[in-house]
Amino acid sequence: MEFDLIARHFTRPTPGAVLGVGDDCALVAPTSGMQLAVSSDMLLEGRHFAPQDSPAGIGHKSLAVNLSDLAAMGASPRWATLAIALPADDDAWLKAFARGFFRMADAHGIELVGGDTTRGALTISITVIGELPPGEALRRDGARPGDDVWVSGVIGSAATALAYRQGRLFMEQIDAAKVLPALYLPTPRVALGIALRGVAASAIDISDGLLADLGHILERSAVGAVVDLAALPTLPVLQRYLHESVARDCILAGGDDYELCFTAPAARRDAVLEAAARADTPVTRVGRITADPGLQVVGADGHALAITRTGYDHFAA
Amino acid sequence: MEFDLIARHFTRPTPGAVLGVGDDCALVAPTSGMQLAVSSDMLLEGRHFAPQDSPAGIGHKSLAVNLSDLAAMGASPRWATLAIALPADDDAWLKAFARGFFRMADAHGIELVGGDTTRGALTISITVIGELPPGEALRRDGARPGDDVWVSGVIGSAATALAYRQGRLFMEQIDAAKVLPALYLPTPRVALGIALRGVAASAIDISDGLLADLGHILERSAVGAVVDLAALPTLPVLQRYLHESVARDCILAGGDDYELCFTAPAARRDAVLEAAARADTPVTRVGRITADPGLQVVGADGHALAITRTGYDHFAA
Repeated sequence: MEFDLIARHFTRPTPGAVLGVGDDCALVAPTSGMQLAVSSDMLLEGRHFAPQDSPAGIGHKSLAVNLSDLAAMGASPRWATLAIALPADDDAWLKAFARGFFRMADAHGIELVGGDTTRGALTISITVIGELPPGEALRRDGARPGDDVWVSGVIGSAATALAYRQGRLFMEQIDAAKVLPALYLPTPRVALGIALRGVAASAIDISDGLLADLGHILERSAVGAVVDLAALPTLPVLQRYLHESVARDCILAGGDDYELCFTAPAARRDAVLEAAARADTPVTRVGRITADPGLQVVGADGHALAITRTGYDHFAA
Repeated sequence: MEFDLIARHFTRPTPGAVLGVGDDCALVAPTSGMQLAVSSDMLLEGRHFAPQDSPAGIGHKSLAVNLSDLAAMGASPRWATLAIALPADDDAWLKAFARGFFRMADAHGIELVGGDTTRGALTISITVIGELPPGEALRRDGARPGDDVWVSGVIGSAATALAYRQGRLFMEQIDAAKVLPALYLPTPRVALGIALRGVAASAIDISDGLLADLGHILERSAVGAVVDLAALPTLPVLQRYLHESVARDCILAGGDDYELCFTAPAARRDAVLEAAARADTPVTRVGRITADPGLQVVGADGHALAITRTGYDHFAA
């Protein structure tokens, strides 16, 4: 199966590589003096997507979540490999998957240079390689007390869509239509990550939820943070559902948004806004880094909320 | 699950990387002027290994088959990422898997710099990155008429072991013990691949069987080949089973040996043997490249055998 399927759907010109799909390895020539950022993710049917999901959407999302890791590092996407297990030689499925995959690849200038296909339950494993100048990576360990905490775009949409789809949250259909694209067609913040080189002190992409992912920055940087609940950017439609604890949890602890959470010195606020404008990506200041460890979320009344990694603590207070 | 498991079993010092496991991406600094060889493979339980296989052996083999792709390109191993799906948090299994994986990694100087773990049927996807000087890669498309065809080590052992394990071939236990290591603990020919830079004209690793893999070289190079059946190197124990067609097919069409098949101009025979001696790896001349397309296998009587991609053609005369 392997050879024909790769040839038919995944062999395209790779002007940015020395040798693309079809040999034991791909060959690429890194730009002189640049460092490489490398990340691998594995996505499984039943866990990361549903059997009925559109193959083009799966192609889009599986590359998007990997590009999001490059974005969180501030790296420029260059090359990708794709290993995929498929239950059967489904030509139509693969054609649609490849269309979604390559549309995302083309949008961010990344080239598919290698791959592997095998028979099995649908599993997609992608490795992405990006480039960036030495010393300019947006690492998780760079946050310092006094830094502002920023978030790109809006958060909570993908998790709200998932809660809707799973029947945990009732939404009007017209409202659900506004959040579903975030779940199926996330946008990796590649341009913002690159623009934030030399500006942001630390960064991570929000794949597991703001609390968990900001928590990784705090842990690696040995600092704490105070986040202002009212400042968190969401789609307007979400405001109509905030009487539901499920919806509130989606904002603080909802994964799959693939927005960036990053910190920058307060003195660099203008530089952050300039970078965001250059990347044509909205950013919002949502809190600040503290020397005291721990993550506090402060409500509109100025009081700290009882939170857990999965959202508000519904059993507290 | 992800974070703790990675931290516990897969975070080790990575002196050859700028930043290892634990951020959105790993950061590495390629050697100035070198090209990179990149390859990804996915291995599934039930297809590439059995549920009862030893986890240390699975760790060994899953990295070995990836290193074999670097070997077939002549690249020096540098960095690897590991994405793994596991049915449960099995600490003992992971500890043993990591032991096998890192023993193989240490033997070949490759560093695990990134990873992903998720819940699901056991699936292992590894990406390896190696370095090599521009223009020295051992590609599949470099074979020329008149080249010798060479094979490293011995072939057919892994396939014979699989046939024995699956009950398709009866072997004495003492004989089976001699072929089983080839199936469970293959040796990637990394040192030979590096030594063959500038010597071999083309190369591939034998993962699908000599006929199929040499076939890839012939196709990409637009040439043919004549292979001398009697010259094919096997373990002595295999000779005792050659009255079985299953055993004969294992030599010509048996996969999983991860030996190298390569070609070199006849004028470079001494250079090939010197490279093999430097790499401490036996090599055997088994045929020659022809301008006529097609792959012929000639028996001891000097007549061409009727062959298919899966071995002899048992239905032909």
